[in-house]
Amino acid sequence: MRKVFLAELQTIGEELINLSQLVAEAMERAYDSFANADTQLAQEVIAADARVDFLQNKLDEQAIDVLALQGPVASDLRMIVGSLRMSASLERMGDLARHIAQLTRLRFPDKVIPDSLTETFASMADLNIQIATKLGELLETRDLNKAAEIITLNKQIDELHASVFKAIADDSWTEDAPTTTDVTLASRYMERFGDHGVSVARKVNYLVTGEWEPQVD
Amino acid sequence: MRKVFLAELQTIGEELINLSQLVAEAMERAYDSFANADTQLAQEVIAADARVDFLQNKLDEQAIDVLALQGPVASDLRMIVGSLRMSASLERMGDLARHIAQLTRLRFPDKVIPDSLTETFASMADLNIQIATKLGELLETRDLNKAAEIITLNKQIDELHASVFKAIADDSWTEDAPTTTDVTLASRYMERFGDHGVSVARKVNYLVTGEWEPQVD
Repeated sequence: MRKVFLAELQTIGEELINLSQLVAEAMERAYDSFANADTQLAQEVIAADARVDFLQNKLDEQAIDVLALQGPVASDLRMIVGSLRMSASLERMGDLARHIAQLTRLRFPDKVIPDSLTETFASMADLNIQIATKLGELLETRDLNKAAEIITLNKQIDELHASVFKAIADDSWTEDAPTTTDVTLASRYMERFGDHGVSVARKVNYLVTGEWEPQVD
Repeated sequence: MRKVFLAELQTIGEELINLSQLVAEAMERAYDSFANADTQLAQEVIAADARVDFLQNKLDEQAIDVLALQGPVASDLRMIVGSLRMSASLERMGDLARHIAQLTRLRFPDKVIPDSLTETFASMADLNIQIATKLGELLETRDLNKAAEIITLNKQIDELHASVFKAIADDSWTEDAPTTTDVTLASRYMERFGDHGVSVARKVNYLVTGEWEPQVD
């Protein structure tokens, strides 16, 4: 019975890793579509999000089956319930990548982001891809330094997000109102993606150590 | 044993109703602070959100205890797992009301919303308060007509949210860029609050009928 349970727990773990990789890829492709006003790629990102949603539902059903058939307690139970929370965050990260791709489509043939913010958004996307990639590694290796690294990366995103608002409030900002709206939304989506990454990282840290805040070696 | 379980299930149900009422109140007060540039009230809304977070954690711990001690299966198990999902949505609704109150503080002494959009935001707030109030009724009575009503109310919010973007894109829009950003964020927060309300309503409908889409009488 225990052997079956451990195998099921491992399957759920692998699916969380798989979801992390899918959302890292979604962010990478969403940003490419966004930076290059590539609606074809944007459409692919939008379509691919259905796979993330499907995998989340599958994972949740498996977790419920494990709860019903194995009746886990203590740390095993917390691991399963934690998986439900983590899958929800990862699904949401997929949605946010999709929203970025949707902005690309709405704005075509123009680019969403004015030249003055290209580097800022490139950095936010890069940090988010790193976060999602490290999440996969954290889930695989339980190396809690990765959790601390994810939190640090997210702080950099928060600073970039604040810098976008500062740029918008500056006298030198001459973009039209719809561009201001799109930039605001895109920055918010980037920021939320990182936040969800941190939620998952903290959850893993909590499940392993009982503490929410990772300690750095 | 069954009696204990039913009592615990009822407690969890009551806590979900309580959370719905708290987030309805949070939206009402957040909107009042926002419409009147009342930073004192905004501060109260921000402080009160800690209570929502606390109650969500408490509810989740109780749900985990029930899973561990009672080992529920079938529909009971789904109800408990569904409660974890619903509490997460309600907690997020509290966050969004807090975000609206935070905009009030950031913008003080000015109002966040220009006069031309006062009515639109008043309607969005009113629809969201109705959604959160009806969620409490739905959780209490299991009257699935309420779920259908919540979905209809949310469609009206989506239309108002789209109308905000239309106003921003119109030639008559003369607000400065930071106002455009605040209006964009506030509208997004309103829209997401309603979406989370719909998630909870669909979850209740699913738990009662096995179908996600409520049928209207």
